[in-house]
Amino acid sequence: MRETPISLVLDARGAMGLSLSKVTMAKVIDKAETVGAAFASIRNSNHFGIAGYYTEMAARRDMIGICMTNTAALGVPTFGRHAMFGTNPIAVSVPALAGGMFTLDMATTCVTRGKIEVYDREGKTLPSGWAVDTKGKGTTDAHGLLEDMLFQRGGGLLPLGGEGEEFSGYKGYGLAVLVDIMTAVTSGGVFGRSVMDSEATSARVCHFFCAIRLDLFREPEELKSDMSRLLAELVNAEPAEGCERVYYAGLKEHEAEALSAKIGVPLSAKIAAQLRQIGQGLGIAFPG
Amino acid sequence: MRETPISLVLDARGAMGLSLSKVTMAKVIDKAETVGAAFASIRNSNHFGIAGYYTEMAARRDMIGICMTNTAALGVPTFGRHAMFGTNPIAVSVPALAGGMFTLDMATTCVTRGKIEVYDREGKTLPSGWAVDTKGKGTTDAHGLLEDMLFQRGGGLLPLGGEGEEFSGYKGYGLAVLVDIMTAVTSGGVFGRSVMDSEATSARVCHFFCAIRLDLFREPEELKSDMSRLLAELVNAEPAEGCERVYYAGLKEHEAEALSAKIGVPLSAKIAAQLRQIGQGLGIAFPG
Repeated sequence: MRETPISLVLDARGAMGLSLSKVTMAKVIDKAETVGAAFASIRNSNHFGIAGYYTEMAARRDMIGICMTNTAALGVPTFGRHAMFGTNPIAVSVPALAGGMFTLDMATTCVTRGKIEVYDREGKTLPSGWAVDTKGKGTTDAHGLLEDMLFQRGGGLLPLGGEGEEFSGYKGYGLAVLVDIMTAVTSGGVFGRSVMDSEATSARVCHFFCAIRLDLFREPEELKSDMSRLLAELVNAEPAEGCERVYYAGLKEHEAEALSAKIGVPLSAKIAAQLRQIGQGLGIAFPG
Repeated sequence: MRETPISLVLDARGAMGLSLSKVTMAKVIDKAETVGAAFASIRNSNHFGIAGYYTEMAARRDMIGICMTNTAALGVPTFGRHAMFGTNPIAVSVPALAGGMFTLDMATTCVTRGKIEVYDREGKTLPSGWAVDTKGKGTTDAHGLLEDMLFQRGGGLLPLGGEGEEFSGYKGYGLAVLVDIMTAVTSGGVFGRSVMDSEATSARVCHFFCAIRLDLFREPEELKSDMSRLLAELVNAEPAEGCERVYYAGLKEHEAEALSAKIGVPLSAKIAAQLRQIGQGLGIAFPG
């Protein structure tokens, strides 16, 4: 759609989000290598997987990586009753020394629909502050909420910070709208309540990518050394009574990744059986 | 400290934050005018006022404006018990048509210290989810909390999302650390628990500024037209039962600003008396 030395706007035309996003982030990194920083947005795309995957591509090249995507509308604005934005995640990665990095990858709603589904399956009551019903009032009924969302009767997930103003839910709401702006308004794509599956197609989501070279600011090794110091201070902070340790964004995930690299990826019996079955249908043997 | 066509890093040497920040954002805007986007960070500064003031400078020039600052450490990480970051606000402005704009300007802690002070003065109990005590356990005691924070005994404000993981407090915590990274790690300044007033000086805070030209993505008038459509959809969203209306980030503030421009800035009797007194001391007559 538009290209400058520092930016790129693409129309995915309904293609898979994963492969185009990887190619696009690689282009953004190349442009940043030349100009210092670069931006891209994509419209008419589909689910692109893990936002933090793309930001870590930049971090491994001594850059700050930023990525956002809008999603089908599920989130209700502060004082509202209808879904007007998606779970709209924001991810940012910044490298530290020796391959360490900070990776924040967060939905801007308090929780995602997947978490409501888990509560529904287990027949549990939702904590109040996660969702509202069709009148915009707090609800703890997981099953009713999922039905209301499915049939678009109103109600939905609350933004980070919860209901009303007491716990600053308008901040999560503001962040969710910011994601709609950076992804869809910059690319001329679909935003807000209009992002939804139709009979003909899946929801046409939009993405945003950015890479900023560390050496715009300081010698990368010095900057990364301060990053390592900051992350170490957080990890070494004294835990609350009854808590084991303090994390920083991405630490849990990186520890799980390192463990999986060593012992393999743990699968539930159900998923393993499904994979075996798919493999049999395609004539591919199950490894190990 | 360092300057490229797209970036600037400054040491404020303890100067006032307000004037240097305005000059710096103007430079960032000038650089963005040439290159398409630009970034700056400042270390060793002082309170710079309102983050959204600087982002709106960019928005009035058909740019996306971003601004952050770290502050004296008052915020406690998820599972922690000591203050390890400030209220660390993030501001972003994006222009719409006819001078309209979206301005998100939010502390990344759930509330700021000022709000705790109001509760203390009024002898009210804090909502649980705002703060923790010296053991890292939720507290509702405003007075005790302020004393513990003052004498650095531990305890402090919770990040946006509250205590533990149930309401995703680790997201607000991650955003607060991100602000420390973008402001202090990029400028070689002071971050985390080390940002605090000393006997000799006020806390030496760090700022971050960014401006991105709208036309990197689309024709500015088209982009702003979509911005206006997005903001109108939010304002026209059906309110929750018992609520009057749905806002978007910055709307309340812009309405208050327009009212003040018309009728003047409302002052409490106490503030008006203080201003009269200061004016008398300096031989300046009170207007009106």
